This record gives sequence, structure tokens and C-alpha cells, in this order.
Amino acid sequence: MPTIVVEVMPKAELLDPQGKAIAGALARTGRGEFQVRQGKRFELTVPGDELTQELLDRVREIAADILSNSVIEDVVGVHVVGRETPAGV
Amino acid sequence: MPTIVVEVMPKAELLDPQGKAIAGALARTGRGEFQVRQGKRFELTVPGDELTQELLDRVREIAADILSNSVIEDVVGVHVVGRETPAGV
Repeated sequence: MPTIVVEVMPKAELLDPQGKAIAGALARTGRGEFQVRQGKRFELTVPGDELTQELLDRVREIAADILSNSVIEDVVGVHVVGRETPAGV
Repeated sequence: MPTIVVEVMPKAELLDPQGKAIAGALARTGRGEFQVRQGKRFELTVPGDELTQELLDRVREIAADILSNSVIEDVVGVHVVGRETPAGV
């Protein structure tokens, strides 16, 4: 059963309140040198064991349509768990 | 400026309502074969350009302490953007 990971991050130019809140918490614990951005990570699993280009393309389509909001987010990665498929998006 | 990615997922044995909701949306659009789990992806950036083992260890500590709730989540990955450092967790 191939598992495909989709990674989504807020667009760089947008304010990231969650990231700011975490950076603030780090600063309060003496680790203020970090800048933090928070996004989402999805694991899509399909029964069967065949990993095809068609399957990867469908996941990319899902990533763009459903897993991310193209106005405020970017899909920054689509890769197969255990294999660094050059699944450039 | 090294950017370190931390990936956090809900523990496998736990119910994942967000993942279920997405899988439902996919099923309604004729793509019901996917199982979906949703987690979080963080990018931690540090000024300066030196990537040290000490820095990676500090990020792992932050990942465990602040970026994840060890009761319901697992840190599934810590790696440097652009390099597949074997930063096993």
C-alpha cells in the first residue's frame, strides 16, 4: 500500500499567526533565535501495491484542489514515503 | 540560513477526524479509494549559516516539547531542507 505525503505551507508573503505564536513560546523559553512557520502534512494511502505515474498525478490534483487553498497556501512537496521520488510539483 | 523541517502526525491508533473528513470529501468527488491522515509540518529557520549537530538536537528537543503533544502525536521526521540528513528521530 503506497503512502504518498503531501506537504502544504502558507504562502511566504503571508502573515503566519500560528508560526508567530510558536516562535513567541520558544522565545519565552530562551530559544528566541528560531523563526517558525506552520503548515500541513497529509498522508494518502491507497489499497493495492502499485505506484503509478497516474496515481501520483491524481494525488497532485487532489493536493491542489482539496488539500490546499491556492489563495493562501502552496503545495511544497508530494513524495512517496520511503522513496524520494522526484515528484516535483 | 538553514531551514529545518519537523513533521508531526497523529498517533496511528487514534481516530483522525480531519483525515476522515477529507477522505469523505474525496469520496464525494469520486476518489473514494484514498485513506487520508492529516498532521503538521513546521519550518524552523535560524539566522547564520551554520548547521551543527547541536542545532539539530535542539530542534529535536523543541519538536518533542513544543511542536507535538506526545500523548496523541508522533514526531515522524526532522530533516534539513535541501539535504536528506539522516536526522532519524
